[in-house]
Amino acid sequence: MTTTPESRIAGRVPELSATEAAECVPTDGTVLTSGFGRVGYPKAVPTAIAESDRSYGLTVVSGGSVGEEIDTALVESNSVDRRFPYQATAAARAAANDNRIAFHDRHIAGLADEVQFRHLADPDVALIEAVAVGEDWLIPSTSIGQTPAYVEAAEELIVELNRAQPRSLAAFHDVYRPAPPPRRGPVPLTAPCERIGDPRIRFGSETLLGVVETEQPDSPYEFRDPTGTDEAIAANLGAFLEEEIERNPALASAVRVQFGVGSLGNALAGALSDVSFGDRTVTYYGEVFQDGLLDLVEDGDIAGASATSLALSRDGQDRLFEDVERYAEDVVLRPADISNRAELVSRFGVVSINSALEVDVYGHANSTHVGGSRLLNGVGGSGDFVRNGLVSIVALPATAVEGSVSTIVPSVPHVDHTEHDIDVVITDHGVADLRGRSPMERANAIIGSCAAPKTREALEAYLESAGSSGGHIHHDPEAAAGWEWR
Amino acid sequence: MTTTPESRIAGRVPELSATEAAECVPTDGTVLTSGFGRVGYPKAVPTAIAESDRSYGLTVVSGGSVGEEIDTALVESNSVDRRFPYQATAAARAAANDNRIAFHDRHIAGLADEVQFRHLADPDVALIEAVAVGEDWLIPSTSIGQTPAYVEAAEELIVELNRAQPRSLAAFHDVYRPAPPPRRGPVPLTAPCERIGDPRIRFGSETLLGVVETEQPDSPYEFRDPTGTDEAIAANLGAFLEEEIERNPALASAVRVQFGVGSLGNALAGALSDVSFGDRTVTYYGEVFQDGLLDLVEDGDIAGASATSLALSRDGQDRLFEDVERYAEDVVLRPADISNRAELVSRFGVVSINSALEVDVYGHANSTHVGGSRLLNGVGGSGDFVRNGLVSIVALPATAVEGSVSTIVPSVPHVDHTEHDIDVVITDHGVADLRGRSPMERANAIIGSCAAPKTREALEAYLESAGSSGGHIHHDPEAAAGWEWR
Repeated sequence: MTTTPESRIAGRVPELSATEAAECVPTDGTVLTSGFGRVGYPKAVPTAIAESDRSYGLTVVSGGSVGEEIDTALVESNSVDRRFPYQATAAARAAANDNRIAFHDRHIAGLADEVQFRHLADPDVALIEAVAVGEDWLIPSTSIGQTPAYVEAAEELIVELNRAQPRSLAAFHDVYRPAPPPRRGPVPLTAPCERIGDPRIRFGSETLLGVVETEQPDSPYEFRDPTGTDEAIAANLGAFLEEEIERNPALASAVRVQFGVGSLGNALAGALSDVSFGDRTVTYYGEVFQDGLLDLVEDGDIAGASATSLALSRDGQDRLFEDVERYAEDVVLRPADISNRAELVSRFGVVSINSALEVDVYGHANSTHVGGSRLLNGVGGSGDFVRNGLVSIVALPATAVEGSVSTIVPSVPHVDHTEHDIDVVITDHGVADLRGRSPMERANAIIGSCAAPKTREALEAYLESAGSSGGHIHHDPEAAAGWEWR
Repeated sequence: MTTTPESRIAGRVPELSATEAAECVPTDGTVLTSGFGRVGYPKAVPTAIAESDRSYGLTVVSGGSVGEEIDTALVESNSVDRRFPYQATAAARAAANDNRIAFHDRHIAGLADEVQFRHLADPDVALIEAVAVGEDWLIPSTSIGQTPAYVEAAEELIVELNRAQPRSLAAFHDVYRPAPPPRRGPVPLTAPCERIGDPRIRFGSETLLGVVETEQPDSPYEFRDPTGTDEAIAANLGAFLEEEIERNPALASAVRVQFGVGSLGNALAGALSDVSFGDRTVTYYGEVFQDGLLDLVEDGDIAGASATSLALSRDGQDRLFEDVERYAEDVVLRPADISNRAELVSRFGVVSINSALEVDVYGHANSTHVGGSRLLNGVGGSGDFVRNGLVSIVALPATAVEGSVSTIVPSVPHVDHTEHDIDVVITDHGVADLRGRSPMERANAIIGSCAAPKTREALEAYLESAGSSGGHIHHDPEAAAGWEWR
């Protein structure tokens, strides 16, 4: 790191210890935190709250997923009563599933508005990690997330100035805030990597309670290596993309892609270098910049990337931190309500590739609740891209739990993405292009092309029996509920 | 009507009889038709196809819902093999439910792109009703729908010049077409009733096969009079709106509303005059301009209305046709991909009010498939507004079939709108504001406030029994499938 410590604080800002800051947080308050993709979230103050003798019952609204200091320590100290919009830790998941925490998962794109217009709670304190701060501005660290809206919405602001995050991260940031309705106008972004804002987030200086200095790295995702199944999905995706760019007039000269959060999304993004795009420029327009994109940027396989989070593994962070200036030429970070905005996903014609827990034969997807009941992580930004993408692809392995469970089912027990939104399903077994097909045609395509061969007979048997009562969609809820492929 | 026949046709355009035009349509072709909200659709050529000796197996892609000439006559003559995106007739519904027609319902906002980028089919002929036509332009009649995209996408164009529709309808139209990606930019609309286009739709003169002259009125919706239940829902909606505008900063000076298609939406729109909006300007930004809005415009209760269809009853049409110029001062018609565009619904902060067949206790809605199986009409534009509205309200009677069926259920058998999108549920019994609430809190709110009192015990019993296996959402698919409130 080549940052100079003295450039981190400008002007006169009050200093606080983490413990002092924790005492400024009302014990029943609503805390809005930075953080997205498990990076760029506040660490010292949540830890101090977790370790405090005071009894907290907080509403915690993060940008997206955050690390262990919030979703493990704070949760395990029983300091969280209510939580939005997404979590990805064992502790928070267990608490949501036991209803010890009132959790509701929300689309990422809409969250800034929901918070600012007080749909979810009345925000008390924004708790924001920064790499630099002044009297009325801050520069976010490894993610922007919902921070611009949060510092505007909250009564008071506490900044964690984290010296473990390079000051030079400022080079990635493009902060632009749409006005609220009725004064809201078009977002003037005309290309995925264009810059229309500023690296700084402004706030009213009277809201700044103080700055807590820390030097604590993120606790980021660790991606597993691609499996054979990942590679088979990637090969099917690549073949589909090569056909699609030839036939789709909106992809004649440029291709914009998005991949979902997680190891599969990371592996599929990484495999883009094997796809032949001809002379088309390929650009990433998504919410997370994951490890798989590092090589693509470095090798010039993609022209650039736009996201709201540098959601890299530890190794990926090290690689990026060593050459921030080089990467910042091609990578831009935006607020999450810009990265995920329907207006822009549609404008850019993004080909979206997201995963799901399971997909039913008619093309509805369950991304969030195992058995319709147990929360996994949350819908996150997947719905923003599935709903608004030019071509919306759901990619998933055809089986789970070591091949014992079919992810292609008669009817998903929780619907996060509907048949109206999903265009293409891709598994390790093949591709079902659902566009222009009726529900029964979709069912035949998904079973015939995507389901694991050993599950097809049972799926067809369901279709056959459910068809006895007829209808546009052959649906037998009781049989679907009891269905297993064995 | 004060139109002059001679002003209808400009320049040299080939004339065709309806029979000649029908013969130009390939028997297995894909026909893109004008029409939305059962008005402004072609009538003579579909009738000629239905009466023809040739055997057709067409793919028919309409703008939205169309009248009897297409969705009854053409269907009953077995001339339709495949149909998008929406229908609202007994004949088309029966054919879709018997799978005699391969039907898939699609969101309205995305359809123009889907057709233009050939996701659904390869378009052969656009069949468009107009009030005036020239060598390379036409002026649509009572709806715009998807017509601008359709005349651009189809190989050939047949225009039905309908002298039963006033030439002066041109005064309503504001035709603006976004470029396809990657050249797509912001839609430059900054206020709901602003005009950014032209009354004319342009086409390549070489595509025009000919003009068929007709004089045949629309077969529009007939709205039933508001029932006591409608009035109770309207009263609850009004009370909610009066509270919401006080607390929501995005509604401090202006309120933009949308209502769904149909008698309930029409009744709720009409009841807006009873709501006290203080000194806020109220504007309608939706897809259909229905009878309920006529008085509001006339009395100045709303500042204006933007839609894609004058979806009026016969009486409403008569009233509008008598004073087109007066209404056109405050009402603007747009292409459906503008009226329903996520970008604009979000920009304007639209409060969306749509109905559904049923809603489950966690806030998922079924708008399309009775029992998850039998198609009613289609999702239409409801998803465009529910997904992108500032506040998304689903309003429905708490019971159906003369009180014998609860529309509040443990689990909807088909999900068109998810828990992530629906903010508020309103029935004749009350209001459940779901924002900031976990699934279990949502369930208690919906059962306690919205369900008919006689059904509450059975709903609570379901929740109790489904809770035995725990989880974030108490869900028992088999019990939900067999649930009845008696």
